[in-house]
Amino acid sequence: MDAVQEAQNREAFRHAVVNTLERRLFYIPSFKIYRGVAGLYDYGPPGCAVKSNVLAFWRQHFVLEENMLEVDCPCVTPEVVLKASGHVDKFTDLMVKDEKTGTCYRADHLLKDYCKDKLEKDPNLSADKAAELGHVLAVLDDLSSEELGAKIKGYKITAPDTKNSLSDPYPFNLMFQTSIGPSGLSPGYMRPETAQGIFVNFKDLYYYNGNKLPFAAAQIGQAFRNEISPRQGLLRVREFTLAEIEHFVDPDDKSHPKFAEVATLEFLMFPREDQVSGRAARRIAIGEAVAQGIVNNETLGYFIGRVYLFLTQLGIDKDRLRFRQHLANEMAHYAADCWDAEIECSYGWIECVGIADRSAYDLRAHTDKSGVLLVAHEKFTEPREVEKLVITPVKKELGLAFKGSQKMVVEALEAMDEKEAMELKATLEAKGEAEFRVCTLDRAVTIKSNMVSISKEKKKEHQRVFTPSVIEPSFGIGRIIYCLYEHSFYTRPSRDGDEQLNVFGFPPLVAPIKCTVFPLVQNEQYEEVARKIARSLTAVGITYKIDVTGTSIGKRYARTDELGVPLAITVDSTSSVTVRERDSKQQIRVNVDEVASVVKEFADGVSTWGDVLWRYPTHSS
Amino acid sequence: MDAVQEAQNREAFRHAVVNTLERRLFYIPSFKIYRGVAGLYDYGPPGCAVKSNVLAFWRQHFVLEENMLEVDCPCVTPEVVLKASGHVDKFTDLMVKDEKTGTCYRADHLLKDYCKDKLEKDPNLSADKAAELGHVLAVLDDLSSEELGAKIKGYKITAPDTKNSLSDPYPFNLMFQTSIGPSGLSPGYMRPETAQGIFVNFKDLYYYNGNKLPFAAAQIGQAFRNEISPRQGLLRVREFTLAEIEHFVDPDDKSHPKFAEVATLEFLMFPREDQVSGRAARRIAIGEAVAQGIVNNETLGYFIGRVYLFLTQLGIDKDRLRFRQHLANEMAHYAADCWDAEIECSYGWIECVGIADRSAYDLRAHTDKSGVLLVAHEKFTEPREVEKLVITPVKKELGLAFKGSQKMVVEALEAMDEKEAMELKATLEAKGEAEFRVCTLDRAVTIKSNMVSISKEKKKEHQRVFTPSVIEPSFGIGRIIYCLYEHSFYTRPSRDGDEQLNVFGFPPLVAPIKCTVFPLVQNEQYEEVARKIARSLTAVGITYKIDVTGTSIGKRYARTDELGVPLAITVDSTSSVTVRERDSKQQIRVNVDEVASVVKEFADGVSTWGDVLWRYPTHSS
Repeated sequence: MDAVQEAQNREAFRHAVVNTLERRLFYIPSFKIYRGVAGLYDYGPPGCAVKSNVLAFWRQHFVLEENMLEVDCPCVTPEVVLKASGHVDKFTDLMVKDEKTGTCYRADHLLKDYCKDKLEKDPNLSADKAAELGHVLAVLDDLSSEELGAKIKGYKITAPDTKNSLSDPYPFNLMFQTSIGPSGLSPGYMRPETAQGIFVNFKDLYYYNGNKLPFAAAQIGQAFRNEISPRQGLLRVREFTLAEIEHFVDPDDKSHPKFAEVATLEFLMFPREDQVSGRAARRIAIGEAVAQGIVNNETLGYFIGRVYLFLTQLGIDKDRLRFRQHLANEMAHYAADCWDAEIECSYGWIECVGIADRSAYDLRAHTDKSGVLLVAHEKFTEPREVEKLVITPVKKELGLAFKGSQKMVVEALEAMDEKEAMELKATLEAKGEAEFRVCTLDRAVTIKSNMVSISKEKKKEHQRVFTPSVIEPSFGIGRIIYCLYEHSFYTRPSRDGDEQLNVFGFPPLVAPIKCTVFPLVQNEQYEEVARKIARSLTAVGITYKIDVTGTSIGKRYARTDELGVPLAITVDSTSSVTVRERDSKQQIRVNVDEVASVVKEFADGVSTWGDVLWRYPTHSS
Repeated sequence: MDAVQEAQNREAFRHAVVNTLERRLFYIPSFKIYRGVAGLYDYGPPGCAVKSNVLAFWRQHFVLEENMLEVDCPCVTPEVVLKASGHVDKFTDLMVKDEKTGTCYRADHLLKDYCKDKLEKDPNLSADKAAELGHVLAVLDDLSSEELGAKIKGYKITAPDTKNSLSDPYPFNLMFQTSIGPSGLSPGYMRPETAQGIFVNFKDLYYYNGNKLPFAAAQIGQAFRNEISPRQGLLRVREFTLAEIEHFVDPDDKSHPKFAEVATLEFLMFPREDQVSGRAARRIAIGEAVAQGIVNNETLGYFIGRVYLFLTQLGIDKDRLRFRQHLANEMAHYAADCWDAEIECSYGWIECVGIADRSAYDLRAHTDKSGVLLVAHEKFTEPREVEKLVITPVKKELGLAFKGSQKMVVEALEAMDEKEAMELKATLEAKGEAEFRVCTLDRAVTIKSNMVSISKEKKKEHQRVFTPSVIEPSFGIGRIIYCLYEHSFYTRPSRDGDEQLNVFGFPPLVAPIKCTVFPLVQNEQYEEVARKIARSLTAVGITYKIDVTGTSIGKRYARTDELGVPLAITVDSTSSVTVRERDSKQQIRVNVDEVASVVKEFADGVSTWGDVLWRYPTHSS
């Protein structure tokens, strides 16, 4: 029963957090007066301020610190771009329809719910059956459309609301489609990620950077996914803010000049091998992880370290943050390595940042589709003699042998790397023919020695031309913020102990409002002082909330603790005021003229509360 | 020929600006490697930084200064919301199609081009014809679909590219349409403005503000218009950033507590009467304009003043900025008053900010459609006796008389204001019947005294319930930035006088990069100093660009003048450096340890160049 109890506790905790968030307008279900739209949320005033603080810190921590080239591209994207990136063909989820009502469901969700439900609630489940369902859950993400359909039929799963039978699964593209211009002939989509806007600009950005590698481009913006049936509240939504970095680097040199600055950072990592062998995540220094080859290269490791610093400085609990390496089956075939920053919240471990080495895939895809070369150059100081592999398929012979499949065979031959080519050459020379696997035909063919010539030629070269690799850290800002809410939330008893009060313990950096100003009692003198302090706070760029209601100070504290306001200024004289810190509830006396600068140094992170406390007399209420 | 010459100069100037902007990646035509999409542009690195600075200043100047409630709503919007706002039915342009190729054109553009072309290039044009074409241009925006079609036919206007004949004009909705969720049954649109997201949240925001008026909500975000054929480069685009404020105010009290702070500001205003009578815009103090009733109310006037301060502090030339009042025919029927901040650039006077008193229209529209009351309450300290108008249509009699039209007649009777109702009552009492116009029937009907009872009743009321008025300042951020580029751009001769160099004279607030760091010559000592300065700049949050190429200092200055970088630090010793200001080209000597703080105080606007110049020894190169 422990697992059940734990699940209930998580639910209750989430309920308390979400209830506070919604009541205090951190977020609002969008278009609420029209009964809303699933998967769309507004950021209300405090939520909007938190988001704006998180993005400002992201810019400071990544863009400014690393001198990145920030760009801002439109959301509306023509089809050709997303055809090249693969989204038009592959950005899909499998869907089933209620055969009578037409209501749509995600096929994997239904199967997952069925298995979980059986495992949790069926007391008569045999051990064999339980093992089987457990296995289905483990391989869920790998099931093909046919396999999913067979399982749904096999388990007799029906539509949750009507119990009607379900259609076979079929792919639904998750992009919002639209049409650009009035003709109806130019299909477009709302971008599913911001990255493509950077890739298509590679040539200009490389030039802007003085034709030098490495460099990084960054973009913050909206992205869109037309989810089949959104779940998990703020975690799976149809429109969200992404912050993405594309760091372009020479594939032959993925070292990073600043790697030493993060190398000693130690945090929870969950390498592929540990996952497969059932071990737990463990603390590893990122320097060690790169040295041992757990993380593919220094640049990838550097970004993992920087992401760790970013998240923990925002207020994410380092013990509920881990970096999980993608399993072989999760990773795109072209990716060299991929790690997710996962944050634990009441929904479990949630992917919030993906950090992938996508190799040359994206730039090559756009080069192929657009015909514009997206490459970098390395000029040699001295011309170098290089051996180049030359593969020349003999099209006539190949045509006679393979007819309609000729093109695929030619492409497969040309795509061989040096090792493959030299092995084929050796076999052809020894035996006159060789078996050769053609991926696109999904079979092996017999190549004879008259069908291809393979040689190495020496050439003098003045430069090296290559497609850069891309290391991509991609941040789901909304998910990070939601986890931050959960990690910052706590309750404590009110002074008379008869109720539990909610507190968001945001660091000053994140807090939506940095301080409140409360005249102790309603009188013109105190209110004048409050207005004066308010003006001086505005002048130094500090957000505040003024509350001149006659409510008790305790109640006013409780109201703003719930908004995560770190400092409260109570005007209880005309010369000096009381400043109270949210978490410790400690109070100090500060002169009216000084108070704005004290709040500012605390809000900007120049001083901690400890620093401030030491300099001013304490106040006991 | 003066007008022609002037037009040519404007074209040449624009060409120089746009060329520099595109070459230095202030903007990039989106998806350029795929030959782009008309009306979509990326902000490249310096453009993105300018935009981010403009938005940060907007937040400081409006949201923080006025304690506004900022929200952040999705772009994807369900149809019902935009049906209520009127966009689904009325957000259209008239379009004509090439009858053979199907190519689409904006009908008014073709007619406008025809008239302008004739007027400018036809030497045989009679005075009568010229007057006629001039009149067409003047009333162009008021022409109905039929009138436009008749003119296009009458002038035998054909498709510009093919000379094929054109279809009749028909309305094309400018919203990008999409579908929410997988069913295909929930139409949605990409929002054409951000305002609706605020209106639908009025109830929650009013509560968040302690159920008090006035208050303002604000939103920055993307908006979308699927233009038929985008023109004017960066000024008319299909996706753009809006910053909108909705200030909710009691319709009976539109005074503003801070109006005195802006009342003495004097700037170019262009009231309706002056436009109609052919006078020019003139300088008026905003306090005077409100006092004389030229501007409808203090709150509207306050925002006009604040917009003036915002734009001029960004660097917009105050002599090329005017506030133009909407003519009666431009203004929506519900609007109380409306002023556009227009900025003059090479395209003419361009609307960049609209400041409208939209009365209660939007909140009423969403109340009607959603059934949720979007109203405010004023609690009376003492209950008040009020006379209330009571209109009771006698449905039986009306049904007999008007049959199918009964509903429209009933609604029209109930919608009468006090004055209309009392007049009708008087006529009915005097004559037993009265002519009564029913808008929705587009005719008058005869009302007899047995068909409606009209009376005034006295009631005690404890509060007043009313729909707030909305004052809406709405900023087209991209247009403001483009005008800023034109107003900041100038050229000056190079030192040897053989070429003209481009400069963007941005104020430090706007400049994309605040300073550059140049080691005078390539050596390790100077580069180490440069890196040290770079680190100290990052620490105080100042963006910089480091240039260690061996290029001459003059060339390096020229390169960054073109980016509008206000200060350049040349490392020419290991203890002190030369700091050069962009516009004056004056130079001072500053210690290495002090230089970051000097740049920061200048970049933050704490000191002017004059202030700094006075404190440090000058340097002559």
